[in-house]
Amino acid sequence: MMLRATLLATALLLSACATAQTRTPDAAQTPVFRSAAQIIAAAPDAHWRDVAADNLLVMDVPGGRVLIELAPSFAPRHVDNIRALARSGWWNGLAIYRSQDNFVVQFGDPSGDDAPGKPMPAGVVNPIPAEFERDGGDLHFDVLPDVDGWAAQVGFVDGFPAARDTGTDATWMAHCYGAVGAGRGNEADSSLGAELYVVIGQSPRQLDRNITLVGRVLKGMEHLSVIPRGPEPMGMYGDSARNVPISAITLASSLPAAQQPKLQVLRTDSTSFVEATEARRNRRDGWYLRPAGHIDLCNVPLPVREVGR
Amino acid sequence: MMLRATLLATALLLSACATAQTRTPDAAQTPVFRSAAQIIAAAPDAHWRDVAADNLLVMDVPGGRVLIELAPSFAPRHVDNIRALARSGWWNGLAIYRSQDNFVVQFGDPSGDDAPGKPMPAGVVNPIPAEFERDGGDLHFDVLPDVDGWAAQVGFVDGFPAARDTGTDATWMAHCYGAVGAGRGNEADSSLGAELYVVIGQSPRQLDRNITLVGRVLKGMEHLSVIPRGPEPMGMYGDSARNVPISAITLASSLPAAQQPKLQVLRTDSTSFVEATEARRNRRDGWYLRPAGHIDLCNVPLPVREVGR
Repeated sequence: MMLRATLLATALLLSACATAQTRTPDAAQTPVFRSAAQIIAAAPDAHWRDVAADNLLVMDVPGGRVLIELAPSFAPRHVDNIRALARSGWWNGLAIYRSQDNFVVQFGDPSGDDAPGKPMPAGVVNPIPAEFERDGGDLHFDVLPDVDGWAAQVGFVDGFPAARDTGTDATWMAHCYGAVGAGRGNEADSSLGAELYVVIGQSPRQLDRNITLVGRVLKGMEHLSVIPRGPEPMGMYGDSARNVPISAITLASSLPAAQQPKLQVLRTDSTSFVEATEARRNRRDGWYLRPAGHIDLCNVPLPVREVGR
Repeated sequence: MMLRATLLATALLLSACATAQTRTPDAAQTPVFRSAAQIIAAAPDAHWRDVAADNLLVMDVPGGRVLIELAPSFAPRHVDNIRALARSGWWNGLAIYRSQDNFVVQFGDPSGDDAPGKPMPAGVVNPIPAEFERDGGDLHFDVLPDVDGWAAQVGFVDGFPAARDTGTDATWMAHCYGAVGAGRGNEADSSLGAELYVVIGQSPRQLDRNITLVGRVLKGMEHLSVIPRGPEPMGMYGDSARNVPISAITLASSLPAAQQPKLQVLRTDSTSFVEATEARRNRRDGWYLRPAGHIDLCNVPLPVREVGR
């Protein structure tokens, strides 16, 4: 029968379903198409980089574990505060108090503005300056050649989706799915890194250069993205009984060595990454009938793998 | 204290938080900024259009009710089949069997390819041609002036996000958050409209012109987007005990008049829509420090309201 339950599914699987195509018998002269998954699977170890344990936040929520890579090269002051908060266990027992559909989940101290809140531990500096962008003159920027409506140039810095103003070299991280940022009030310098949000929908790039991004989720997004949406304006739960508890947020480097998650990300300056991105820009597996000839910054997946100790 | 639980939140609320700014005492010569929410609230009734009951699918899942507007102007053959399926109650008791993070949920007959599946009711035509795109020469196309990487021109047709090839006039609906499409196999004409998917993540525009979109969710996306992700490849549940049951999918026009949901959408050819979009392209409420000067097609919200009988 004609029903195909896995139709779209089959076509979009980024792994096993794409097979090499040989179009003429003269294989020596015919480029063999490799899918992105094949390219990534074949990437040599040198194309991967380790995620430093001091940059890896381990967040435990009811659904499972979320791993966040911090970006001290973009937000050094916020990352210092976040490390101090994590080392002191500040978030442990606090909650996700906001989940707004197609936008963000947000967590920290639900008492927020209107109550004293949980005291800051030693080592947290307050206030700190906004870290919306930085001078990119000395940054290695892996350019994505595709046009972007929000910025003159987009690409990656150490695997973080980023954008820059080619006139001034100002460079900033981009609000893609999984981006982690620091909530602020109306004043630019009103964020500390204690109230964090994670993008769970269509990339809200209008936030770029307006708020400090501190990192991105590498693993476990599905534990955040399915959190029930809050019924109040902006996805707030209102009733604190709905809050989703955070059992712990820990810096991986604080864990015993045997318990530290070990992740690697594909280097965005590697030929494997460039080739995998091209395979997605112009898909040639059996299902796609019209390759797009384009990819948006926030549609580029950033391969992550767990490695043994 | 400096913690602000509603920081990002407050800033991004599209309603009450944005206040008119008067920059000089000479108000007569100073344009008063109105937020998108203010513009929409003030839109006259003529700027709204009714959603036809014959184009409105009413989908009941455990989390609540999802309302989908069908697009017969783009996918007439698929919409005919979908109406026949809904009128016969074909989906009632079937399930959502796939939820892939940052991509789609998919539903229909979980038995799929490998089992006989549920027989098609009378009125369903099989096969039908692919409806990936159509000639747009006679369509009213409300152009969004912003650059798009995926198409020569983007905009809206009757409120549906769309794109077109300005050389050929070929026009198609775009895969934005909430888009509803018909799963297919490797053959272009292998979709019927019985297996449907809904985009729940970053817009997968690479699917545009590769698969038939049939409409979009107008209300209730939060009941689909939080459905637990499947553990198998492509977000499949594998174990059918995990399937999320569909109690019913009904055409609103089949319901008793008193039970028909009545929705209106803001007309994308209205000045209210154009002005609200500009207010979002260059935000001037108190929180934003740097207006983006741009908006992507899939970042433009499409206002929907319920109306009395």
